Amino acid sequence: MDREELIKELAQKNERKIVLVVLDGLGGAPNETGKTELESAKTPNLDRLARISEIGLVHPISPGITPGSGPSHLALFGYEPLKYQIGRGVLENLGLGVELKRGDIAIRGNFCTVKEENGKLVVIDRRAGRIPTEENRRLCRLLQEKVAKIEDVEATFTPGMEHRFAIRLRGEGLFPFVNDTDPQKEGKEPIKPKATDPRGEKLAKILELLLNRAREVLREEKKANYILLRGISALPHIPSMSELFKLNPAAIATYPMYKGLAKLVGMETLKVEGNGIEDEIETLKKHYQQFDFFYLHIKKTDSYGEDGNFEAKVRLIEEFDEKLPLILELKPDVLAVTGDHSTPAVLKGHSWHPNPFLLHSPFARPSGVEDFSERGCARGNLHIYEAVDAMVLMLANALKLKKFGA
Amino acid sequence: MDREELIKELAQKNERKIVLVVLDGLGGAPNETGKTELESAKTPNLDRLARISEIGLVHPISPGITPGSGPSHLALFGYEPLKYQIGRGVLENLGLGVELKRGDIAIRGNFCTVKEENGKLVVIDRRAGRIPTEENRRLCRLLQEKVAKIEDVEATFTPGMEHRFAIRLRGEGLFPFVNDTDPQKEGKEPIKPKATDPRGEKLAKILELLLNRAREVLREEKKANYILLRGISALPHIPSMSELFKLNPAAIATYPMYKGLAKLVGMETLKVEGNGIEDEIETLKKHYQQFDFFYLHIKKTDSYGEDGNFEAKVRLIEEFDEKLPLILELKPDVLAVTGDHSTPAVLKGHSWHPNPFLLHSPFARPSGVEDFSERGCARGNLHIYEAVDAMVLMLANALKLKKFGA
Repeated sequence: MDREELIKELAQKNERKIVLVVLDGLGGAPNETGKTELESAKTPNLDRLARISEIGLVHPISPGITPGSGPSHLALFGYEPLKYQIGRGVLENLGLGVELKRGDIAIRGNFCTVKEENGKLVVIDRRAGRIPTEENRRLCRLLQEKVAKIEDVEATFTPGMEHRFAIRLRGEGLFPFVNDTDPQKEGKEPIKPKATDPRGEKLAKILELLLNRAREVLREEKKANYILLRGISALPHIPSMSELFKLNPAAIATYPMYKGLAKLVGMETLKVEGNGIEDEIETLKKHYQQFDFFYLHIKKTDSYGEDGNFEAKVRLIEEFDEKLPLILELKPDVLAVTGDHSTPAVLKGHSWHPNPFLLHSPFARPSGVEDFSERGCARGNLHIYEAVDAMVLMLANALKLKKFGA
Repeated sequence: MDREELIKELAQKNERKIVLVVLDGLGGAPNETGKTELESAKTPNLDRLARISEIGLVHPISPGITPGSGPSHLALFGYEPLKYQIGRGVLENLGLGVELKRGDIAIRGNFCTVKEENGKLVVIDRRAGRIPTEENRRLCRLLQEKVAKIEDVEATFTPGMEHRFAIRLRGEGLFPFVNDTDPQKEGKEPIKPKATDPRGEKLAKILELLLNRAREVLREEKKANYILLRGISALPHIPSMSELFKLNPAAIATYPMYKGLAKLVGMETLKVEGNGIEDEIETLKKHYQQFDFFYLHIKKTDSYGEDGNFEAKVRLIEEFDEKLPLILELKPDVLAVTGDHSTPAVLKGHSWHPNPFLLHSPFARPSGVEDFSERGCARGNLHIYEAVDAMVLMLANALKLKKFGA
């Protein structure tokens, strides 16, 4: 029996409510002041809560591994991140708000520049000079108009930023066993889409037709005169949170990617009016009676970290701290506050550093440490563990897990 | 996908340099003063570094397991110690500086005393009264002279301490599928070498001939009149550090065993002029531009621990502390200081205790604990983890791992 089977067997339903607040990219690293973003922020409410809660540090995946948002969220939702992997095409589509159903094929596309040499296409710019997003939108509209249907398969083209876009294919008998067509280097021919498994043969044929038609449509463009396909994938088979944990879960998020991830594990995604922290908390209040698990996602901590904007990340953390009493007013049985991974402004990107974690419940052993920060959590009574266990702790504190063995 | 495949997929090359200092057997246990060796040593430089570095404790293998040097080093080098096991014969040969190639058979030999009873040999002392090392050398020379070649196989006999020696067999078609001949008890016959797998048949035949000839050569010796064979093994198939981690690694060590272990994982072993700590650091300086990973091994902490010489181990730790600034002058991007396992003087041997670990990098969250010791590291912000993850943390801090998932 593995860990997942154990939790599934022990899970039981009750009325208690769990609220998991994810401040995306919460963890940081010291800048020249010697303090991290969270250590620099004034967070009196979180600090007071930390003293009477259990606190510790959480590896998003395992020591030293820097995760993308997909695996780091799955882990926090209680899923083994190495067991359940999400393809890049799926994430790209989810991130752009494209709805995916089982059986759909999801692809990340890049506009590129090719030239013809002796009847062959050669890639001379894999990113088509990073064309403006506006240009990308125009080209996706064009593709949508001209390549909406390939034999019995429907194609949906959705523009992203610069040269990036997403393709969804919907039709019978499509399986994601086809290689990327991106040659990874300029000066080479695009790779032909070939089945890597006999089940991929129909998709390979459809993609060949799609590429030919895309070439015809784009031929006269100056920069974006062809496309490259990457991360050809389908929705993974992930059991729902209801199936695994007997939860009735809802997601409160404003960015498409996180709503998509929440849907993947069977959460209901709630509509947020506005996109501020208070708007999200308002949504929580409004639906509080309908669900027993809430995932509330705050994106901007990560965005400011990615921008290298230490100060703005500090201010956003302080803003969350100010609003925290609004959540506490609801008296959730279990409240967890953490990040999905660290995004230190000094690194301008995700990192491997473990995340601060706080778990408040009537059964929490108080940490006694009045300091919700990397330093405070390093002295916390939860010590350090892996994110996939966070859900187990939340379920336990909500008395949603039966005893193991007699 | 397992951990090793994950790291291999994420590893990327860059210019950053990692220095891993292994003070062999660093960890200790309290003597009558109530302090360990490291707690007794005055280590102002390490203490200051600990405050601004990440520190914690590291299980060499997993809680409670006391490792030999082979598995403890492999784990620190990032290899699963239960997956990659090194035969005793291989370690014995490496420890004596014997060069091993793929296909060689490596054996640990013991001189023993036998008597003949009704035409049978009976072992009456499995260690031949622990003959002096000098005597061992004479006997190995004799064997080398008389048993250099068995059919098409070349044999090399290398003396160790007291009754122990190493045999290397080099020839075609030899596979290490043959049982030990040591009966493990006095009063029994030596066990005949038999193939445990059809591939071992040629080796079993060669060993039978070797044993017969050794008996002829040694028949008139008073004590060491026969030999027992153990740990018949060959080089394991271990992917190199370059293959797994995209590192260009070098080893700085003065004892043959550690150079051998380093070669096993594909490190270049650098020549050290002299055998002091400063000589090793000099070697590091000299080759600093040529490699991106350095393993610097200091042996004597372990030797003094094995001798039960608490004071000498304390002094050696203090000597390393004095030389530490010479390493810091090189400004390595990542510096890790730890042991491969504990060797408490009170136990006169290796132990299971977790090792102090220090990781210094520009991205380290400072521990704030100015105390590099078992006690200090137990309060450290890295908490406790397994040695196999130490390499992952070093790679992460050197920005040598890409993001996992999108």
